[in-house]
Amino acid sequence: MRLADLPTPCLVLDRAILERNIATMANGLARHGVPLRPHMKTAKSIDVARLATAGQQGGITVSTLAEAEYFAGHGISDILYAVGITPQKLDQVAKLNSVGAAVIVLTDDLDTAGAIAAHRQPPRALIEIDTGEGRGGIAPDDGLLLEIAVRLGPYLAGVMTHAGHSYAGRSPDDMARIAEAERAGVVHAAERLRAAGHAATIVSMGSSPTAMHARRLDGVTEVRAGVYMFGDLFQAEIGTHGVDAIALTVLTSVIGRRPGRLLVDAGGLALSKDRSTADAPRDYGFGLVLDRAGARSHGDAVVRRAYQEHGVVEADPAHPLDLPVGAKLRIAPNHTCMTAAAHDRYFVVEGGDEVVAIWQRANGW
Amino acid sequence: MRLADLPTPCLVLDRAILERNIATMANGLARHGVPLRPHMKTAKSIDVARLATAGQQGGITVSTLAEAEYFAGHGISDILYAVGITPQKLDQVAKLNSVGAAVIVLTDDLDTAGAIAAHRQPPRALIEIDTGEGRGGIAPDDGLLLEIAVRLGPYLAGVMTHAGHSYAGRSPDDMARIAEAERAGVVHAAERLRAAGHAATIVSMGSSPTAMHARRLDGVTEVRAGVYMFGDLFQAEIGTHGVDAIALTVLTSVIGRRPGRLLVDAGGLALSKDRSTADAPRDYGFGLVLDRAGARSHGDAVVRRAYQEHGVVEADPAHPLDLPVGAKLRIAPNHTCMTAAAHDRYFVVEGGDEVVAIWQRANGW
Repeated sequence: MRLADLPTPCLVLDRAILERNIATMANGLARHGVPLRPHMKTAKSIDVARLATAGQQGGITVSTLAEAEYFAGHGISDILYAVGITPQKLDQVAKLNSVGAAVIVLTDDLDTAGAIAAHRQPPRALIEIDTGEGRGGIAPDDGLLLEIAVRLGPYLAGVMTHAGHSYAGRSPDDMARIAEAERAGVVHAAERLRAAGHAATIVSMGSSPTAMHARRLDGVTEVRAGVYMFGDLFQAEIGTHGVDAIALTVLTSVIGRRPGRLLVDAGGLALSKDRSTADAPRDYGFGLVLDRAGARSHGDAVVRRAYQEHGVVEADPAHPLDLPVGAKLRIAPNHTCMTAAAHDRYFVVEGGDEVVAIWQRANGW
Repeated sequence: MRLADLPTPCLVLDRAILERNIATMANGLARHGVPLRPHMKTAKSIDVARLATAGQQGGITVSTLAEAEYFAGHGISDILYAVGITPQKLDQVAKLNSVGAAVIVLTDDLDTAGAIAAHRQPPRALIEIDTGEGRGGIAPDDGLLLEIAVRLGPYLAGVMTHAGHSYAGRSPDDMARIAEAERAGVVHAAERLRAAGHAATIVSMGSSPTAMHARRLDGVTEVRAGVYMFGDLFQAEIGTHGVDAIALTVLTSVIGRRPGRLLVDAGGLALSKDRSTADAPRDYGFGLVLDRAGARSHGDAVVRRAYQEHGVVEADPAHPLDLPVGAKLRIAPNHTCMTAAAHDRYFVVEGGDEVVAIWQRANGW
């Protein structure tokens, strides 16, 4: 099977780039001697998880219980569900843990900590620390930290933070500064717990930008990152990697032609409506247009508008886009996690036109 | 099963509102004596299709060949695939048509028209007319119209237009004006074809706003509309219906609490990153927050930020949101087609808390 034969729109995953991205992150963290707990929210694929966990401690991070169930079913037991748990979800966690998984949950809430400890089969839990993102978590020096620890009792496994505000950084120095605040905050929280006599075995931090740019990681026991595996235009804009590190693209067909533009069959569903590059130095619309081989033959052509199933490609005047209806293009996405989630499988290539594998995804909840 | 028992996030579809919306559109078009060919791109569900086609001619519109295959498999044969066809997709259409379906395709391209006519099993085809949207289609008086008709030969079935630019309208008068341009343009194209001796059996127009607000439809043989079934905040903002006509919401759980805001487990994946109301009179962020019963108990609370799996709810100061972790809310979406597409099923209610049915969706391509 070749790319020319695939129904469109669909996902193309270049394993050569994927493996290079995984090696870059693994080598970067190896310098610090800190293992990676790869975040599978982007890839949601056991095939990708096997590559990303190779040489690491074997654990992964997930963003849904559907992912936890899928990966547990494929033999991965050490799973951190890194979204705040609710009391109602504990039964599902217990069910996974009763058949061999070891799903760790997350909370920043006193009542929920009580519900965890009172459950008939309590999972281990991390306390979420806010090191500047302002989403979930409590401040490292919040008095609530010790109260939650007491409430969790023997089920407390440590602390976790996510410096998602690193996405507002625009340079390696920005990222290094945010990474250090992330590290210092979560380590401080762990030290407060230990000083009060609690265990804090796991001290988990991470986002792709801070994982890539952290200058020290002492006190941290693991780093989480996910989007680095596939990369995207937004991560390229903020300096996590280069544009040539984007492993995931959407294969699309030309379905209409006009002077200076094309209609393609990748619209808002196939690409997502994510517009993160609108706030980046360079705005790629809904994605950068590549040729079928994944090369930048069409200059700065982007998907300027996205309807449900139609994308409007605006040509770069220096690179006319004279293609017939049915011709195929590839679109590099703004935000790879959002784009991948609309599709149920990857058509895997190795830099070329031949499809060497089809890998499934675990979508939904 | 009750809403309180459902895993979150998930889709809740209120059948009472759905049936009212379907009746409103059917009654509106019945006044013109023009049948509806409901667009199933929003609902992608046979259960919804059965309600929407009741009392109509039985045909539907789809936006993907996956939908065409799904609906054909459920016994609907008259299917208009209303996205420009490519030569490569004709085999899949032929396969469906060889087992009882009658899939009609769409083109505005001379070479593609030739490929249709030259196929071993040509489908019937409509020529796409642009009546102002500037997406697909040729102008009603374009010379290419007759050339494409000649190329299609006996497979020409008529003309189709979509006034998607009605989404830029903001009043019934705007919509009526756009609807009239849509009607006049597509009817003019049909008349040109007939004057040249071609058949133009089907004269198809539509979008939910123009279907709702058209003041005359003479010369039109069918109207397409889809989003009206479920409704959304954007359609409410442009006057297609009221906020109380939104049949589809996302059920979500509180996963974190802060002064003035809540974290919920409906983020960018469960709600979509669609920000269409950013350009509407009222900006609802990523969705309007309702209580578990679907009532507006929380005033103007909206989902202000959306991460992959986290939504940040900003409370209305006049309606404090003092809810525990695990409490359930419902979110009315900006753009119902995009939101529904992230989910594989509907939990159906009848205005109350009890789940009376589960309906599946046909996602993907």
